[in-house]
Amino acid sequence: MTRPVDFVNPLIDTANRRFFFFSSACRPFGMVNLSPDTVNGGAWGSGYRYDHETVLWFSHVHAWQLAGIPVLPTTGPVQGHLGAEVYKSRFSHEKETVRPGYHALFLDDYQVQAELTSTTRVGFHRYTFPEEAEGDSIPTILFDLGAEVGPSQMSDCQIEKVTSRELVGYVENAPTIRRPKPTRIYFVIQLDQDFNQVGGWRDGELLGAIEQLDGPGIGAYIQFAPNQETHTQDARKPGRIIQMKVAISYCGKEQARLNLDHELSHWDFDKVRAEADEEWNEWLGRIEVTGGSQAQRIKFYTDLYHALLGRRRVSDVDGKYIDNTGDQPLIRQVPLTVQGSPLYEHHNSDAFWGAQWTINVLWPLVCPEITHNFCNTFVDMYKNGGLIPRGPSGGNYTFVMIAPTSTPLLVSAFQKGIRNFDVDAAYKGMIKNHDQAGGLMSKAGYEHDTCIGGGLEYYKDRGYVPTGIQARAYHTQGGTQTLEYAYCDWALGQMAEVRSNTHDADILNHRAGFYEKLFLPEWTSEGQNGFLRPRSKDGSWPAEYDPMSPEGWVESNGWQNMWNVPHDVAGLIKLLGGRNTERDEKSGRERFVERLNWVFEKASEADFLAPHGKHHTNYLDYGNQPSTFVAHLFNYAGAPWLSQKWVRRVMAQAKSDITPYGGYGGDEDQGQMGALNVLMAIGLFNVSGGCNIEPFYEITTPIFDTITIHLNPTYYPGKRFTITCQNQDPENVYIQSAVLNGQSLERPWFYHKELAQGGQLELVLGPKPNYEWGSQPEHAPPSMSGSHQEAPNNRIHPE
Amino acid sequence: MTRPVDFVNPLIDTANRRFFFFSSACRPFGMVNLSPDTVNGGAWGSGYRYDHETVLWFSHVHAWQLAGIPVLPTTGPVQGHLGAEVYKSRFSHEKETVRPGYHALFLDDYQVQAELTSTTRVGFHRYTFPEEAEGDSIPTILFDLGAEVGPSQMSDCQIEKVTSRELVGYVENAPTIRRPKPTRIYFVIQLDQDFNQVGGWRDGELLGAIEQLDGPGIGAYIQFAPNQETHTQDARKPGRIIQMKVAISYCGKEQARLNLDHELSHWDFDKVRAEADEEWNEWLGRIEVTGGSQAQRIKFYTDLYHALLGRRRVSDVDGKYIDNTGDQPLIRQVPLTVQGSPLYEHHNSDAFWGAQWTINVLWPLVCPEITHNFCNTFVDMYKNGGLIPRGPSGGNYTFVMIAPTSTPLLVSAFQKGIRNFDVDAAYKGMIKNHDQAGGLMSKAGYEHDTCIGGGLEYYKDRGYVPTGIQARAYHTQGGTQTLEYAYCDWALGQMAEVRSNTHDADILNHRAGFYEKLFLPEWTSEGQNGFLRPRSKDGSWPAEYDPMSPEGWVESNGWQNMWNVPHDVAGLIKLLGGRNTERDEKSGRERFVERLNWVFEKASEADFLAPHGKHHTNYLDYGNQPSTFVAHLFNYAGAPWLSQKWVRRVMAQAKSDITPYGGYGGDEDQGQMGALNVLMAIGLFNVSGGCNIEPFYEITTPIFDTITIHLNPTYYPGKRFTITCQNQDPENVYIQSAVLNGQSLERPWFYHKELAQGGQLELVLGPKPNYEWGSQPEHAPPSMSGSHQEAPNNRIHPE
Repeated sequence: MTRPVDFVNPLIDTANRRFFFFSSACRPFGMVNLSPDTVNGGAWGSGYRYDHETVLWFSHVHAWQLAGIPVLPTTGPVQGHLGAEVYKSRFSHEKETVRPGYHALFLDDYQVQAELTSTTRVGFHRYTFPEEAEGDSIPTILFDLGAEVGPSQMSDCQIEKVTSRELVGYVENAPTIRRPKPTRIYFVIQLDQDFNQVGGWRDGELLGAIEQLDGPGIGAYIQFAPNQETHTQDARKPGRIIQMKVAISYCGKEQARLNLDHELSHWDFDKVRAEADEEWNEWLGRIEVTGGSQAQRIKFYTDLYHALLGRRRVSDVDGKYIDNTGDQPLIRQVPLTVQGSPLYEHHNSDAFWGAQWTINVLWPLVCPEITHNFCNTFVDMYKNGGLIPRGPSGGNYTFVMIAPTSTPLLVSAFQKGIRNFDVDAAYKGMIKNHDQAGGLMSKAGYEHDTCIGGGLEYYKDRGYVPTGIQARAYHTQGGTQTLEYAYCDWALGQMAEVRSNTHDADILNHRAGFYEKLFLPEWTSEGQNGFLRPRSKDGSWPAEYDPMSPEGWVESNGWQNMWNVPHDVAGLIKLLGGRNTERDEKSGRERFVERLNWVFEKASEADFLAPHGKHHTNYLDYGNQPSTFVAHLFNYAGAPWLSQKWVRRVMAQAKSDITPYGGYGGDEDQGQMGALNVLMAIGLFNVSGGCNIEPFYEITTPIFDTITIHLNPTYYPGKRFTITCQNQDPENVYIQSAVLNGQSLERPWFYHKELAQGGQLELVLGPKPNYEWGSQPEHAPPSMSGSHQEAPNNRIHPE
Repeated sequence: MTRPVDFVNPLIDTANRRFFFFSSACRPFGMVNLSPDTVNGGAWGSGYRYDHETVLWFSHVHAWQLAGIPVLPTTGPVQGHLGAEVYKSRFSHEKETVRPGYHALFLDDYQVQAELTSTTRVGFHRYTFPEEAEGDSIPTILFDLGAEVGPSQMSDCQIEKVTSRELVGYVENAPTIRRPKPTRIYFVIQLDQDFNQVGGWRDGELLGAIEQLDGPGIGAYIQFAPNQETHTQDARKPGRIIQMKVAISYCGKEQARLNLDHELSHWDFDKVRAEADEEWNEWLGRIEVTGGSQAQRIKFYTDLYHALLGRRRVSDVDGKYIDNTGDQPLIRQVPLTVQGSPLYEHHNSDAFWGAQWTINVLWPLVCPEITHNFCNTFVDMYKNGGLIPRGPSGGNYTFVMIAPTSTPLLVSAFQKGIRNFDVDAAYKGMIKNHDQAGGLMSKAGYEHDTCIGGGLEYYKDRGYVPTGIQARAYHTQGGTQTLEYAYCDWALGQMAEVRSNTHDADILNHRAGFYEKLFLPEWTSEGQNGFLRPRSKDGSWPAEYDPMSPEGWVESNGWQNMWNVPHDVAGLIKLLGGRNTERDEKSGRERFVERLNWVFEKASEADFLAPHGKHHTNYLDYGNQPSTFVAHLFNYAGAPWLSQKWVRRVMAQAKSDITPYGGYGGDEDQGQMGALNVLMAIGLFNVSGGCNIEPFYEITTPIFDTITIHLNPTYYPGKRFTITCQNQDPENVYIQSAVLNGQSLERPWFYHKELAQGGQLELVLGPKPNYEWGSQPEHAPPSMSGSHQEAPNNRIHPE
């Protein structure tokens, strides 16, 4: 039987992706992300890109705004000082193996077979050098420490010889516009045999033998005298084997050594490779599926793999972590049990922008312990630096994207019973983010030192963030800002209600309705009732409105954003459904469904995708966050069969590629698109991001026969929750009926607490919609304004 | 030349003191407080009490609500299981040496010479056993782990043999009414030679040889086979020397081992003894004095010694500390610099009740780094447990005494520029303590689980805490509660003003005036105008008022508390000075001074002291906190010569004893009375506790010729501040004139910032008051209501 890990193909879509997407020799959420880079320079279009024929090096960190420690085994004259464009080697995919936790390739120019695996914090290299190497051509390993890698230039480096088998040092990632403080990554490098010298270079010039080297622009290399004992015993694979471990830490060299000693005390490469494989299989096996095509299973487990890969650990084995929120970097410690185990781990992460529809829903299902880690990371940073972050990067604040996107993660954790963090502090930190200058709502993208671009004062005063705010910041796009603030306010208000912070809840719930401030009811040429539109400071709207324009919208357009009220779909239906007129006797729900359906028809023409950076060129973009929940809105408007239909269509058209040339659209974004795809594949979703006082899941049609989610017993009393699909078939798109734990389920949704108890959801599928199932207004999922505004006689049966 | 440490006599007043007063083998603020105990049972009247002829054991912790690890070297049949009342040994002061960091005594019953010294976290024992011991009489060391020690019963113990030279384990201090959670102290014990077996006992029964023993009521002993190599080489002192180290930690056995390895890696007892001596000398030498009598210098340095001894470190060498604020004990870590040094240390401490007149003023002068430690301890506990503590005890909250007594410590640190802690968090924590149920103002003494006894709601609503609050708590005494809350509110308001938290400042300053709510203006038989009196819930005062009664006052009476408005002496003078009448044409200041002077005359009849527990039996009690600032009030009322006179009288009558039978009055209280005495001896004080926006010092007459305060360069730009007294003599009580940094000083006070810059205060003394100096109303020290209410023609010249 094929195991979950065996389905994963890390090469999917690697022709297109960005620096941190690919990391082969990496554990789930690993600190070390060891993998070859074929393209360098910047955070986009770099890293491992499939179509490039040369490998520059193997580098150890592929994280949000952090990178470093590139190494390459070579033979022949030392060329390290000449840079990777000179010393890089050709390779071919024919002689390459890529799996979760393992990467093997052959360096044609040096005739070196390189294999990479890792523990969580230690990269493990096994190089097989050619037999005959001698003289200038003896085995050489380059450490191009000073090289720019991915998003980071290196402002400082150090390497020091400790013994003839050990080197220690650090690379210091220089500030970037996104991460404004220098950040060091310390390393300990150990070899399994003596090297006979350490050579160095600085600024392109070879220096000869060194004991220690400091400063930017440096590199080093080690060489190995002939030693027959280290050659393979396998006549079919002759060569000299040299193994190397590279342990890292953000806290210090001794911490890197601690990580090494704790995680990798031996030299058995195959054992580590097997353990990496087994660890991945355990994590991936938390969702077991049967049925579906081979391609669907490959894509499914690769999606799940990305959801568990993208966001890196940054705390050490003993719970030490770097705090870069203040004037000087400080080493801090997560609390330990009296048995000595850290209570949680710290992570590095891109923003949680849009994560309400992806990892905020998936993680609490399959790895609530990671959600718990993040909640604690956020709270610690609040306690250390006064602010819950958007995108923690090696202990830095980075202010990536907009809005307090950490709020929905924290609230959804809280509502699902993941509460083993300092909830009071988290709540205070969120209130600060939502209500005070200096908090995240006052800051737009990468607005480190000012509090202008967030438009918080406008938002509080007028109910919307206007266009035209002048700030040295990215994403000062008032349309999206307004809608996302309103959603985040609602989310925090849900938590405030549970905590009986009624004063706060009243204010937050009021502000959650601010989305209406953007609504201009106006009949367009298509007979559609108005849009949510960006608005000027003076309260006016532009005379001409093109919903395809990106103006006022973050990485999107008006078509994609007109649905962006995930917390109050019922209210949105009232707005967009508009008034009855003589020439239009449809109900509001009908008009809403018609319009949404029309948008899907239009978006399908370009496979529901748009290129990164041109997100506004389609009616929807399922390759980037802003509109990834829209297919599920039909469930709220009495037409669940259309959610079923379009979710399957999106998956088939936009998400099913398993070649290196597609699969994720514009930006996979550290597990977000992977998580989205997993949720669509298993037919569970939540438009409101799990933040309701009683969180719930909306149902669409899964693509597998059975799906078994193994629940974490620390958080959930049930052992597992199983979904079965009778009559599963690509043609059988529509749910005919549903049974939840033996009881007929008429609603296209059910509560998280029902799932947490363990149990079974049985679906019967068919080729035609059952227009009765889930279509009654009282069956609509919960929504802020209530979902039962329309009388039952307004039920929609468009066919 | 005699060094400062040579003046210290730890035996002063040991006939009378409580458990944690005495700790000979202890470093400044040491974690290990190793010393002999002669009396056991409870926190009072136990520990080393001078007049007892037997020593029970040497125990390692003498801290606030924490104790443990009693050991005793013996010979003869093992009697450990029979308890200390059986195995204790006679000793005599003739064969005893007691110095800071060293204690030697001879155990007459066992003929063992025992010497004790320590590093900060490791106790070091050197025992010289008699030559001929053999058979049943071989050298034996008892570890009576399960015994009750001082304040603590032991709810659990463990001891385990690791090697023939090492034992590890812990003692668990059972909950007390004051410290409600069990608290473990872990230990590693190392011997300098092999012991031949470990024996044990449980509940009074010997068990024979053991490898490990667990549970309450256990003990263990080790015995040593004959070994000539370990005997002394000194024919004059024959015997067998056995040395032992006992390292402790609140975090775990391995942490205890870390402390041991880091602090004491060798067996050179004399070296450690000399280092302890030198460390004490360095700390004590931060104030150098010349002149005064030998007795005065002995008392002065012993006072300073107590101010630097009482409050124990509880974090480990690597900055790990135990957090007992939550559901389970957690090990946490203070932040480290990237060089690996902890930024601060955590402390254990009795409350800071009254510390505004003692260590809050002295520590920022001589050891601001300790103030800094405490600020950070408070903030960490706030971040960990949601509350800034009153009396942190091994990571526990203890709620000792009343009021948010941590506020004046934090504010005075802040105002003096000690700001290397999370000031925002500290401020928030203080606001919580002052304004919310659950905060310290809502809790009276040891009120762990309720928020009744603090009377916060009454205080906010009516302006005073009434008498008669029913709560399961100590010290629900509304008179003192009201006055101390008002003072603490003022202190926090001063910080709020600096921080521009004007809304908070307005409220706090308003509440700072609540002391007036207790004032009932009524002419008494002595012709005096009213008292501050405890008040009932209905707003009434009792018909009969006896200011000597303790009712409504914490450890004091109405006479002592009628002055307790340290932040607004000017306002108090207005109240107590009362109205002019035909039969009394004196000014308010004159009447205030007359009345205060009368109280001093009365209090002097019993040497300004009252027995502990009977604090109400004198008009003032300079042996306990509540009235220890009163002598300095004359400075505010235009009669500085009376502050000069009474401070010298208090010192002479109440504080000058250097025998084991006096010196501190009722309760030295972990350095508080020591600090008070130091301040009075050097002639610097501050009634308002250093919390003013510009902190200052009031001047009285020092008892030395010169006083040099060496300033900590981390906090203060000046190297030293020197005070000189021309014509110093016991008879020359009065300041004739003052010169500060070359400028004539007319005020009896000067600013902290003037001291911090370094410089010199030159005083000229004489036998009669100079009524001009410092007596002008405009020369009065700053006070909340302003100090210039009276016209200059109301100047007071009572003689």
